[in-house]
Amino acid sequence: MKIITSPLPEEDRQVTGTALQATLVDLLDLSLVAKQAHWNVYGTRFRTIHQQLDEVVTTARDYADQVAERAAALGISPDGRAGTIASGSGLPGFESGWIGDGAAVEALVEAFSVFIGRLRERIETTGRSDVVTQDLLIGLTAELEKQSWMFQAENRG
Amino acid sequence: MKIITSPLPEEDRQVTGTALQATLVDLLDLSLVAKQAHWNVYGTRFRTIHQQLDEVVTTARDYADQVAERAAALGISPDGRAGTIASGSGLPGFESGWIGDGAAVEALVEAFSVFIGRLRERIETTGRSDVVTQDLLIGLTAELEKQSWMFQAENRG
Amino acid sequence: MKIITSPLPEEDRQVTGTALQATLVDLLDLSLVAKQAHWNVYGTRFRTIHQQLDEVVTTARDYADQVAERAAALGISPDGRAGTIASGSGLPGFESGWIGDGAAVEALVEAFSVFIGRLRERIETTGRSDVVTQDLLIGLTAELEKQSWMFQAENRG
Amino acid sequence: MKIITSPLPEEDRQVTGTALQATLVDLLDLSLVAKQAHWNVYGTRFRTIHQQLDEVVTTARDYADQVAERAAALGISPDGRAGTIASGSGLPGFESGWIGDGAAVEALVEAFSVFIGRLRERIETTGRSDVVTQDLLIGLTAELEKQSWMFQAENRG
Amino acid sequence: MKIITSPLPEEDRQVTGTALQATLVDLLDLSLVAKQAHWNVYGTRFRTIHQQLDEVVTTARDYADQVAERAAALGISPDGRAGTIASGSGLPGFESGWIGDGAAVEALVEAFSVFIGRLRERIETTGRSDVVTQDLLIGLTAELEKQSWMFQAENRG
Amino acid sequence: MKIITSPLPEEDRQVTGTALQATLVDLLDLSLVAKQAHWNVYGTRFRTIHQQLDEVVTTARDYADQVAERAAALGISPDGRAGTIASGSGLPGFESGWIGDGAAVEALVEAFSVFIGRLRERIETTGRSDVVTQDLLIGLTAELEKQSWMFQAENRG
Amino acid sequence: MKIITSPLPEEDRQVTGTALQATLVDLLDLSLVAKQAHWNVYGTRFRTIHQQLDEVVTTARDYADQVAERAAALGISPDGRAGTIASGSGLPGFESGWIGDGAAVEALVEAFSVFIGRLRERIETTGRSDVVTQDLLIGLTAELEKQSWMFQAENRG
Amino acid sequence: MKIITSPLPEEDRQVTGTALQATLVDLLDLSLVAKQAHWNVYGTRFRTIHQQLDEVVTTARDYADQVAERAAALGISPDGRAGTIASGSGLPGFESGWIGDGAAVEALVEAFSVFIGRLRERIETTGRSDVVTQDLLIGLTAELEKQSWMFQAENRG
Amino acid sequence: MKIITSPLPEEDRQVTGTALQATLVDLLDLSLVAKQAHWNVYGTRFRTIHQQLDEVVTTARDYADQVAERAAALGISPDGRAGTIASGSGLPGFESGWIGDGAAVEALVEAFSVFIGRLRERIETTGRSDVVTQDLLIGLTAELEKQSWMFQAENRG
Amino acid sequence: MKIITSPLPEEDRQVTGTALQATLVDLLDLSLVAKQAHWNVYGTRFRTIHQQLDEVVTTARDYADQVAERAAALGISPDGRAGTIASGSGLPGFESGWIGDGAAVEALVEAFSVFIGRLRERIETTGRSDVVTQDLLIGLTAELEKQSWMFQAENRG
Amino acid sequence: MKIITSPLPEEDRQVTGTALQATLVDLLDLSLVAKQAHWNVYGTRFRTIHQQLDEVVTTARDYADQVAERAAALGISPDGRAGTIASGSGLPGFESGWIGDGAAVEALVEAFSVFIGRLRERIETTGRSDVVTQDLLIGLTAELEKQSWMFQAENRG
Amino acid sequence: MKIITSPLPEEDRQVTGTALQATLVDLLDLSLVAKQAHWNVYGTRFRTIHQQLDEVVTTARDYADQVAERAAALGISPDGRAGTIASGSGLPGFESGWIGDGAAVEALVEAFSVFIGRLRERIETTGRSDVVTQDLLIGLTAELEKQSWMFQAENRG
Repeated sequence: MKIITSPLPEEDRQVTGTALQATLVDLLDLSLVAKQAHWNVYGTRFRTIHQQLDEVVTTARDYADQVAERAAALGISPDGRAGTIASGSGLPGFESGWIGDGAAVEALVEAFSVFIGRLRERIETTGRSDVVTQDLLIGLTAELEKQSWMFQAENRG
Repeated sequence: MKIITSPLPEEDRQVTGTALQATLVDLLDLSLVAKQAHWNVYGTRFRTIHQQLDEVVTTARDYADQVAERAAALGISPDGRAGTIASGSGLPGFESGWIGDGAAVEALVEAFSVFIGRLRERIETTGRSDVVTQDLLIGLTAELEKQSWMFQAENRG
Repeated sequence: MKIITSPLPEEDRQVTGTALQATLVDLLDLSLVAKQAHWNVYGTRFRTIHQQLDEVVTTARDYADQVAERAAALGISPDGRAGTIASGSGLPGFESGWIGDGAAVEALVEAFSVFIGRLRERIETTGRSDVVTQDLLIGLTAELEKQSWMFQAENRG
Repeated sequence: MKIITSPLPEEDRQVTGTALQATLVDLLDLSLVAKQAHWNVYGTRFRTIHQQLDEVVTTARDYADQVAERAAALGISPDGRAGTIASGSGLPGFESGWIGDGAAVEALVEAFSVFIGRLRERIETTGRSDVVTQDLLIGLTAELEKQSWMFQAENRG
Repeated sequence: MKIITSPLPEEDRQVTGTALQATLVDLLDLSLVAKQAHWNVYGTRFRTIHQQLDEVVTTARDYADQVAERAAALGISPDGRAGTIASGSGLPGFESGWIGDGAAVEALVEAFSVFIGRLRERIETTGRSDVVTQDLLIGLTAELEKQSWMFQAENRG
Repeated sequence: MKIITSPLPEEDRQVTGTALQATLVDLLDLSLVAKQAHWNVYGTRFRTIHQQLDEVVTTARDYADQVAERAAALGISPDGRAGTIASGSGLPGFESGWIGDGAAVEALVEAFSVFIGRLRERIETTGRSDVVTQDLLIGLTAELEKQSWMFQAENRG
Repeated sequence: MKIITSPLPEEDRQVTGTALQATLVDLLDLSLVAKQAHWNVYGTRFRTIHQQLDEVVTTARDYADQVAERAAALGISPDGRAGTIASGSGLPGFESGWIGDGAAVEALVEAFSVFIGRLRERIETTGRSDVVTQDLLIGLTAELEKQSWMFQAENRG
Repeated sequence: MKIITSPLPEEDRQVTGTALQATLVDLLDLSLVAKQAHWNVYGTRFRTIHQQLDEVVTTARDYADQVAERAAALGISPDGRAGTIASGSGLPGFESGWIGDGAAVEALVEAFSVFIGRLRERIETTGRSDVVTQDLLIGLTAELEKQSWMFQAENRG
Repeated sequence: MKIITSPLPEEDRQVTGTALQATLVDLLDLSLVAKQAHWNVYGTRFRTIHQQLDEVVTTARDYADQVAERAAALGISPDGRAGTIASGSGLPGFESGWIGDGAAVEALVEAFSVFIGRLRERIETTGRSDVVTQDLLIGLTAELEKQSWMFQAENRG
Repeated sequence: MKIITSPLPEEDRQVTGTALQATLVDLLDLSLVAKQAHWNVYGTRFRTIHQQLDEVVTTARDYADQVAERAAALGISPDGRAGTIASGSGLPGFESGWIGDGAAVEALVEAFSVFIGRLRERIETTGRSDVVTQDLLIGLTAELEKQSWMFQAENRG
Repeated sequence: MKIITSPLPEEDRQVTGTALQATLVDLLDLSLVAKQAHWNVYGTRFRTIHQQLDEVVTTARDYADQVAERAAALGISPDGRAGTIASGSGLPGFESGWIGDGAAVEALVEAFSVFIGRLRERIETTGRSDVVTQDLLIGLTAELEKQSWMFQAENRG
Repeated sequence: MKIITSPLPEEDRQVTGTALQATLVDLLDLSLVAKQAHWNVYGTRFRTIHQQLDEVVTTARDYADQVAERAAALGISPDGRAGTIASGSGLPGFESGWIGDGAAVEALVEAFSVFIGRLRERIETTGRSDVVTQDLLIGLTAELEKQSWMFQAENRG
């Protein structure tokens, strides 16, 4: 069924839609992973990492909303269900159980690195198909690269 | 590894932990399902249902945090990863794609009904193992039953 | 007509509904009585009692909303119309006209006492029929007993 | 007993007092009726009407306070007890039980219409006895006529 | 010097200006008298009267600003200097030194009574010369009559 | 088509409606003119006038909303489209291009003066047809006369 | 007269200025049209559409300010007067009188569609003449496409 | 002297009162101990522990107020004087002087553990004498067990 | 009558009281003078000076309250009545009628200069009689000297 | 152990430290005594005194924090444990059990008087050893003398 | 030492880093210069320019933070020390001592012009090396060009 | 050029001015150094130190403003330009590049120590030349000594 008239030509709409759906899944997975770490972390840096992880959650949730609604605005039905995330996320897996603060930071840094790499490719692609979407992904990348720096600085020394 | 000394005897801790972990998974699935509906709904009641669904999301996320941290406080590592939700949720599945407002409401009502039934059993169980946890589940049930009424009233007539 | 599917078995639903409807009527009457006193009080303690009575009004209105919506959530149509309050309230009558501060406090203390007595019975009853409703009535009782203390302390000495 | 020295000559005080007491009773009844509808409404417009009704409640309560305190300021004891409302309100009765959204809107429109008619007469009367009171009734009428338009617009088409 | 072009014919401007200037002086005196009482009151009702008096100050200052700026808007230079207040206020004098709570309330009630009487005359006058100014004076009278009731109720019994 | 039942007799409704529609158009034009000046002003008083003009915009927009909704409440469809404003506004024209601060103030003072003159006539008319509308226009006039004083004071000396 | 030194070469300044002035006129017309609909809409979705339309107004006004001040910053005098809007807007006309909710939504969707089409062309143009302006237009387009989706979803089904 | 009429039978009142008074003393001691640690802690985790301790203080103070006022509401005079705390607290002693961050956390964990053990017994007791008090102690226990987890997680690893 | 037991020896109390009473009168006069200028100023700097003067009013009123309550705390009845201000203020007189912006600034600078001179003497005196009062006067002087600079800078060039 | 390098010579540090530690103990005792009275007071002035006492608590707690952290900043470990307060406070004892409003005020006035006397001596001492600490004690004394006046005024007449 | 793994290829990282470091130095210098002017300005426009300059400071500080943290996120250590600013800033020098309002505005306009020119070049460069950084510089340029217009408009006429 | 008439005799003005200018330079340098550390710090305490440093920045900026405006109020032109800071600051230099958390804390502690030593001398000097300035420097010293304690406590253990 067609809900809205897309402002983009069909091909651009397809390309942009693929980038948005993949980003949505990555973002929702990031929000779940960061919450998982938020609840299971321990160690002398517990409180600090516990709070820092909740900022990741907030960022991921806010952008997931923007990304999904951008897809809808282009006439593409976004899919953010648990099964879709479980099977489609591009982020590395996260182990179950309690996790030390250093290991939690390590895992987040790894997740950021993979995610940012995927985003930089989508910035290229959408620059050709839809600059409005590109602008959204640039903003998200800026935010993730900033948080990535903070987690990396946290684990040095 | 043992992170904290539980204030409960081991058996009560096990029973309570099982109830909390199951509730966590249901809550996270509810938050994802309600967001999915929030993005995909259409129809003359779009705006109203779109907003109402976000209140479900907020409720589900807030209680997920409380439930997971209650588990941690009892020395039980909570698991809220995408795979765990996809395989373990007790809620009925939610179809992909655009969804009419009436159908979205219907699906939510069904999800609430199943979830509330499961919660009322856990209230019984935890009443015997840990009244502090029981109190949390009672509060959650009150909130869900209220939202369930509102969605049902919405679809009558 | 049936608006919602009750989460309770029929008998429990009836018992709980009776307790909620009676509490709703008492609360609405309390809100009207306290406003009546708020407007008609005089004496050297005018300002202090005038303000204290408005806190009673706020409490009564907030709980009336919660109680009525809890009834609705169980599929019971709440009735809070003027005629229903006039004929059904369990609170003692309140005289017309100006009222001195001491007498106003006395009247409120009497109203609290009667109301609390009725609530403690309903806490027992609903403990068997619906713990979610019981929890709501416990919260209300705590609040009324606190305000009752303050009004009693106010009239000693 | 005389509590305050009225700033008005006795006859004007009587006339004004009658208008204020009648308005107080109508306002309190409106607040109860709108809450009754707020709790019992159902239908596809549930959420929208449910919220709109609470704005009526807020308006009615705020003006009831102003009207009653204006009466007190003129040395007239206001009477807002349940029995007085039940026997003295000029508003049409409101049926018990669940009510569809269209019917609820209809009932409110009818109540506004009757109330506004009564207020316009009192604006005339108090214009001769006390312009300060008249000013208050004008403000109330403006607010009710605005809300009446919104409910009427809601039921057209 | 002429600063602004008045929206009123000259005669109406004169009449209205006289009413505004007299009201300004009364308001500024009321603000000083209420502060004087606020600082010098004592007795078992100290705290309550101390706070109530500050609400009188706030009211008097706010209306003084509105009244003076209304005069300016009509091209009339307002005069609110200490000497003008000392020689021109229509309010009764206020004694120096500490003052008991009952006597302070008494003095305020007397001041309100005189002020309100003067205002009701100016409402008549300005109703013929400038309804915009009349509307302002009606609002001020409503507020003062309300505060007068509260102080009177405070001293009964 | 008839949307609402008017609380006024037909003739009063017509008279009042005409006054409201004319006021709406003047207000919307004032809001556009003040924004135009806000963007195009220059001179040593740039910042001060730039800010002062935005307060005019806010006033004009707020009252436009109240005036239009008052018309709707009387069953009169308000018309605030660009063409209607361009052809129907009673305000003097405003030149295109950059404008010095003194000239901008001059133009606003002229606009206020014309608008206030028209409003004072409508206050008379609506005093006979609808005092509720009259009250609204009195409030608007008070506000405009105050802002007019400030702009005039700004350009003296 | 030249007010500011442009940071752009003359040709780029001309091209960018044309795009900004056209966008300003479209935005101001959109703000007037959305207000017109806000006041004249009726139907069972009245309240929902009434509120949604005010969000369009807010968006249009905010961006009009940004666009006009961007023009000024480039040394181009913006023109937002009623006559300019009436003759220069690219948006489709909007009929006078009351309008049903469905028709109002339809009209807005049409307006968004036309506006977005024009904006996407200006994004191309300004990408070559001034990326700072382009960035502003991209942000505006993102917002309008989102609101367009919501109105379209509202009228499906 | 008897200040208020208790809503409980005498025996239940005694039992409940004993539980409340003991809890009050423990809470006040906890608030003093946490402040002591807040001021004397040092180490690389200084800032984090310093802030976390102030949350303990806030929790302890808020619950002390609720517990003492619950006692008063039952007609039992609460005793929270320094001497009573010094002699009656059930919490382990806290050494004087500067304290390293690890040792401070250790001491708090120990204090929580003892306090929670005592509270779980009182939950049992008051469940038989006064469910309203029991509900208050359950809420307190939930909060302390959560903070206890956080301090334990902080010292692992 | 003696209301409070002074914490100062009698002689220090007298000396401090004289300094506080004189400062109170100066502050109240400053608040009236600044308001007078606020209402009567005109000229191209109208808006800026109009606002700046209201900050003087706020400062003067806040410190008047602190100074009067400091006197009361020392057992000295403060006197802030209109007559006392008119006869006792140390500030230079302020002419009636409209006043140009430059002249208004000039007058304020003169008033600040006189006031500050008097305050610096009282700082010396109270440094010997009551350092608590001295500290209050130092804070007031700092504030006045800052505002004096701003008014002086305003009139240069 | 030495935590920080003191900015003061050793002798000044000792003298200042003694003054700060004594003040800390007095403040903590005052906070406990005022809470004790807050919970146990009764009489016709209950509400007023109940609230006034909580302001004493807030003041005492805020200054205790400042005083303790000032000690720490000088390298002196502050001691605020229950036993230290019980044995070291300079304030008069406070009786157990319910207390009438007049007696509660009396007790507070006595406590203020003793505390202020001790503080005025410490202001002298620290004026020679550390003016930064002296400034803090001056601010505390000003606050306590103000509250002392209010309680004394409350009990006159 | 390498703190973080850059998301950019080495060459792009170098180019982007150079642009960011240069922008940081310019921004910090702008913040110091604007504060210098804020403190030293005088003239009839003192207050207006004094406030406007503080908005420049706020803008400069906010962007300095974003720019420095963007550099860090790319693995480039930002350098914002006084010596680096003094020797490396691209902004024109600012004279010492008091400065008239017109001259202060002139100096700021000159500073903006130089800074904007440098930024437009860096927008080009970073468009090729890192679009995320480019987006940040575009936002900064938009803000500076807006403020530059306002200062220029201020000095015309 | 002379901008303001100083409230101090010339010699005192010179002495005070020298103290203020030196303090201004130290404060601005502190704000730059703390920001430098804020951006370049790394290590397991990254987040905690990163935030703590921003509080130093806020303190330094706020006091710089107060100190500079105090100088202006005394007729002394403050100088806070980059070159003046670079050549005149009394604080120890800060190395370029990334810095470990322990080293960053160490550097701040050193900076605080030097700065406080210089301030304590200026407190002495200004106590003889201007007690108003002295009071400002005492407040600043209190704040710096508190932050110094926290950084020292952070690096122990």
